[in-house]
Amino acid sequence: MLYLIGLGLGDAADITVKGLQAVRSCSRVYLEAYTSVLTVGKEALEEYYGKQLILADRELVEQGADEILKDADVTDVAFLVVGDPFGATTHSDLVLRAVQAGIPYRVIHNASIMNAIGCCGLQLYNFGETVSLVFWTETWRPESYYDKICKNRAAGLHTLCLLDIKLKEQSVENMMRGKKIFEPPRFMTVSQAADQLIQIIRKRRDEGAELGLTEDTVCVGVARLGADDQVIRTATLRQLVSCDLGLPLHSLVVTGQLHPLEVDMLRLNAEPGALQHLRTVDSSTYTS
Amino acid sequence: MLYLIGLGLGDAADITVKGLQAVRSCSRVYLEAYTSVLTVGKEALEEYYGKQLILADRELVEQGADEILKDADVTDVAFLVVGDPFGATTHSDLVLRAVQAGIPYRVIHNASIMNAIGCCGLQLYNFGETVSLVFWTETWRPESYYDKICKNRAAGLHTLCLLDIKLKEQSVENMMRGKKIFEPPRFMTVSQAADQLIQIIRKRRDEGAELGLTEDTVCVGVARLGADDQVIRTATLRQLVSCDLGLPLHSLVVTGQLHPLEVDMLRLNAEPGALQHLRTVDSSTYTS
Repeated sequence: MLYLIGLGLGDAADITVKGLQAVRSCSRVYLEAYTSVLTVGKEALEEYYGKQLILADRELVEQGADEILKDADVTDVAFLVVGDPFGATTHSDLVLRAVQAGIPYRVIHNASIMNAIGCCGLQLYNFGETVSLVFWTETWRPESYYDKICKNRAAGLHTLCLLDIKLKEQSVENMMRGKKIFEPPRFMTVSQAADQLIQIIRKRRDEGAELGLTEDTVCVGVARLGADDQVIRTATLRQLVSCDLGLPLHSLVVTGQLHPLEVDMLRLNAEPGALQHLRTVDSSTYTS
Repeated sequence: MLYLIGLGLGDAADITVKGLQAVRSCSRVYLEAYTSVLTVGKEALEEYYGKQLILADRELVEQGADEILKDADVTDVAFLVVGDPFGATTHSDLVLRAVQAGIPYRVIHNASIMNAIGCCGLQLYNFGETVSLVFWTETWRPESYYDKICKNRAAGLHTLCLLDIKLKEQSVENMMRGKKIFEPPRFMTVSQAADQLIQIIRKRRDEGAELGLTEDTVCVGVARLGADDQVIRTATLRQLVSCDLGLPLHSLVVTGQLHPLEVDMLRLNAEPGALQHLRTVDSSTYTS
C-alpha cells in the first residue's frame, strides 16, 4: 500500500492520529521536501514519529518514482506531504504510477493553506481562482496572476496568492556547467509579493489601463499559518510592503467584496488605517 | 482559552494529534452538529477522545454563545467542527464574541472538503468559486448556483458544489404552531444534485438560452470523502442521476477545462463512456 499522508501546516503534532498510525506501520517513509515546509525540520519529525525519513526532492519524485514505489505491493510505504497530498501536480503523477504498477493507494488528508486561510476571517466560498506569484528575474517578469486577481475582484471574489518557494535551485551558470551546486533556499515574503503587485499596478497606471486593484486595496498577509507563532496582518498593499511577518512560509490574500462579518474579523488583525478606505456599498457589502 | 478544532472528514482518528491533546485538556467540549457530519456519531467520538461531548446545534451556537464561552477566560473550552473550523460563517461569530469577552482563542486546522476534494484528481488551483445546492421546495427553486457554475466553466475552472444538509429542520406547519418537532435529517445526494442541474439545463434550453453546461458535461461525484469507504465517481451529469453513492455526505464537482493529467486521474474512477465526449482543444487541454 502507498499511503499519501498530509502533515498539515504547523509542526510535527499537526499530523492526524490516523496519519501517525500509518507512518509508524510503514517500512519506508518519504518526506516530500520541495513544494512546502513545516516550521520544524526532518530531524524533529523523525523524533516525533519514531521513524527515519527519506527526503524526497523534486528529482526523486519526478524521476525516481520507481524507487519510491519499490515493493509497495507487498509492504507499506508512506509519502508525507506538508499540507494535504493533493496540492501539487506531481503527486497525481505518483498515484498514477502506483495504479499502473498495481499498487493500491490511500490518502490521509490534512489541512492545507487552501482551506486554513479561512481563519483570517474571509469566507472560503468567496474565493475565486488561486494564483501563484513567482520570483521575478531580470528577464522574466510574468504578470498573468495580476489579471486573475483583477478578474476575481471584478466578480467580488477574494484571491489566495501562493508565494514562490525556491528549494535546491541551481544558478543558470551552475546548471550550464552541469554543477550540482544549489542556491540557498528562498521563500517569497508578503512584503516582496506586495512590492511586485505594486510595480505591476504602477506600470499599468502608466499605460493608462483601468486598475482592478490599487495600492490602497485591502489585503491579508499570513505567515506560518497553523503554527504557534502564526501572524495574520490585514493591511493595504502599500502598508504590507513594509511589514515584516518573519520566517516562512508566507501567503497573501487580495480581498474582493467584503461582507460586514468579514470586515469585523479582518479588524482583529488590522494595521492602523488599513480599513479606512473601505466604502459601504449597501447595508451588507463593502469594497475598497 | 477557546480552542476551535477541526475534526477532518472521516472518523474519530482523523483529528490531529495536536487537536486530540487539546480536547483531552479541556474542561468542556462542544461538538458542532449542524453544518456537517462524520461517518461516526457522538458516542464513538466520546469513546475515542475519552471525553463527554456537548452537542451544539445551530440554536446554541447562534443564540447561546455566552453559554459556550462561559469561564473560557479561566478554563479551556473546545469547540469541535467537522472538517476545518472556518468553513461556516457562524464560527467567525463565535470568535468575535470570544475576542469581545477578552477570551483568547486558538484554531487547530484540519482537512475539509474545500481542499480534500483535490484527491479526485482535479487540481485545486483550477477551481473557481464554490457553490451550494439547496433542496428545492414547491415554491422556492433557486438557480443562481447554475450561473456561477457556468461562469467558472467559461473561465475554464472547475466548481465544487456543496450539497444541502437539513438537520433539525421544522416543517412550516410545526414552525407556525411553535412545535419543536423536527423532521428527519436529509442529505442531498449526488444523484439529486445532478437531477436538479439537469432540470435547470432543460428549462434554460426551452428558453433558448446558450448552455454553459449540458447533460454530457463531465462531473465528479464524491461520497464520504476521507472515510475508509469513500467513493469517487467520474461520470456525465446524465449518468450521475442514476448513480447511488451510498450514505452521506456527498459532494459534486462540475469540471471546467481539463489538463491531460487531470483526465488521467479522472479515468481511475470513471463510469464507462463518461469521458468519451471530451474534446481535445489542443495538445494540452480538453473540454466537454
